[in-house]
Amino acid sequence: MKNSHYYALILAGGRGTRFWPRSRKSHSKQVLSFTGDRTLIQQTVDRLAQVLPPERIFVLTNPILRAEIVRQLPGVPKRQILAEPAQRNTAPAIGLAAHLIGQQDPDAVMGVFPADHVITKPARFLKFVRAAYQGASQGQVVVLGIQARWAETGYGYVEFPEGFAAGGTTPLRVLSFREKPKLADAEQYLASGRFCWNAGMFFWKTSVFTGALREFMPKTATLLAGLPKASARSFPAELARVFPLCENVSVDYGIMEKAKGITGLATDDIGWNDVGSWNAVYELLTRKAGDNVTRGESLAIDSRGNYVDAGGKLVALVGVENLVVVDTPDALLVTTRQQSQKVGEMVKLLERLQREDLL
Amino acid sequence: MKNSHYYALILAGGRGTRFWPRSRKSHSKQVLSFTGDRTLIQQTVDRLAQVLPPERIFVLTNPILRAEIVRQLPGVPKRQILAEPAQRNTAPAIGLAAHLIGQQDPDAVMGVFPADHVITKPARFLKFVRAAYQGASQGQVVVLGIQARWAETGYGYVEFPEGFAAGGTTPLRVLSFREKPKLADAEQYLASGRFCWNAGMFFWKTSVFTGALREFMPKTATLLAGLPKASARSFPAELARVFPLCENVSVDYGIMEKAKGITGLATDDIGWNDVGSWNAVYELLTRKAGDNVTRGESLAIDSRGNYVDAGGKLVALVGVENLVVVDTPDALLVTTRQQSQKVGEMVKLLERLQREDLL
Repeated sequence: MKNSHYYALILAGGRGTRFWPRSRKSHSKQVLSFTGDRTLIQQTVDRLAQVLPPERIFVLTNPILRAEIVRQLPGVPKRQILAEPAQRNTAPAIGLAAHLIGQQDPDAVMGVFPADHVITKPARFLKFVRAAYQGASQGQVVVLGIQARWAETGYGYVEFPEGFAAGGTTPLRVLSFREKPKLADAEQYLASGRFCWNAGMFFWKTSVFTGALREFMPKTATLLAGLPKASARSFPAELARVFPLCENVSVDYGIMEKAKGITGLATDDIGWNDVGSWNAVYELLTRKAGDNVTRGESLAIDSRGNYVDAGGKLVALVGVENLVVVDTPDALLVTTRQQSQKVGEMVKLLERLQREDLL
Repeated sequence: MKNSHYYALILAGGRGTRFWPRSRKSHSKQVLSFTGDRTLIQQTVDRLAQVLPPERIFVLTNPILRAEIVRQLPGVPKRQILAEPAQRNTAPAIGLAAHLIGQQDPDAVMGVFPADHVITKPARFLKFVRAAYQGASQGQVVVLGIQARWAETGYGYVEFPEGFAAGGTTPLRVLSFREKPKLADAEQYLASGRFCWNAGMFFWKTSVFTGALREFMPKTATLLAGLPKASARSFPAELARVFPLCENVSVDYGIMEKAKGITGLATDDIGWNDVGSWNAVYELLTRKAGDNVTRGESLAIDSRGNYVDAGGKLVALVGVENLVVVDTPDALLVTTRQQSQKVGEMVKLLERLQREDLL
């Protein structure tokens, strides 16, 4: 039974430079497919289909990506796929969506989902999503916590009370939000057992969020509240004028760390993966030791543990291990699985060299 | 001063599978360029230009390669670039050339040169070539010996007398020819100081070679002697009928190991390199430690000692060492410099898979 007040906001403004050369400004990570035919943003919409229809999905992205996302999500109304006139982090983006959704449905309950994560156990995931929407319907702010599997320093953390049980569907009290920690802190979080990863999935009534925005980011709240209706002819120009004036702050820092009474659901194993590097793609696609994973055609002699991504040509591996090989018509990447998180540095180098043709 | 009786035979029938994917049946090693704009066979002709004009060069190759070689060697008369109707190793090939050259000039002196070697010190090389032609003019059979730099098991060897001096231009007595040795033997050869590598460069009067062929390979000698003149209309058909009947034997095994009174010139450093693998190309192009060598455009982060061959696209290396990356429109090879001699195995695998499109 779907609740007609449930809405989703998919945040799809990221660049995903670690997936260069497949990811480009106009084709960044969320509009690429890695683990099947469907792209990451299509998979995000697909997963939500059992909870709400695409007609109640909003997408925020950047001007360069919007056309491709419109093309990939034919079920989502085109006017609900918005390009942010400027990069302003998550708090203003969510505020804008809350404003627009709230105009459409004052009783709307809204979930926020990143566009570029993989969830390999969607049925388990949806159990928590439904519970989170339900909690949010009752006025709570609910965050989904992801079981921390190692002392990751690249994620934020959510602190739950001592002795909490993961996997329950009743929102628990959240004691604190922690930004990306230093390694020693991350190790302590993991050892304590009280911390989950914060994957950026939040749920609230739009009225609750708008209220929090007024309280903690009044400047942004006022700017967004002054926008005309989305259907108004003046809306695009006003948005282009107002949005860049909003505070450039994440929702975690701007709202969550300050708000009281936030709750969370500590998920158990939902197969969440933020696909942070080519190595993550490799690991998603195989658990078997010694395998080569190939998108496209490859032949291997004395080669193990390689990830190959090359549609349209044969890739021949001879005596190589644990490499990442990604071929595109104008650029070829060769790195190791271990170093694949450094691919973003190559993108920075191309930016310094002003190689717009390859970005 | 050029001697008008000097002729050269360039043997260009090899496949060079270790240079796949750049080398293909119709584009094998000798018609590729590695160290500059000129291909290996063009460099071979260029080097000889100071000793004899291209009009006195004969080339033996296979039917698939002939058109490309004709295109690459506009100075060599087209009718002197012959396709062997069948693969019959070097003795019948040289016998055929000796027959044709001898018809043209009964006093011809002929040198045999592989088409796919690199010689980085051509002036020094030519000193020995001239001396070898001169010795051959006087009726000798002369082989060029290459300074053995390590105990290579992939080459044949030529044995000189104890205490011989390398670098002289008077032909010395050759005590024996040795085929590709086992490692222990190769190490002994190197330690003895008496052995040079046999690089397949021989010099003789065509009449001397034809006589030796009659003595040691009479069947082949009779078959070739029965061929009509090269200008005869029946020549191509007769060659196609006769050549496959010739003995499938190398000149080393069929003639050199059996003939008496063979002489040789032990060269000193002429910069000879048979370019046996992608690693050999890398080493030819750099002596500097830590360098990446690129044909085409590449960018490297934390990467050392790589060989990249990829016209037409950017190759980005991140955190990789000592790799070989060769990109072509329909196939991409990734191997290590150390394992690059195994590339031939990939070609065999493609043959088993009947991937004619990639061979």
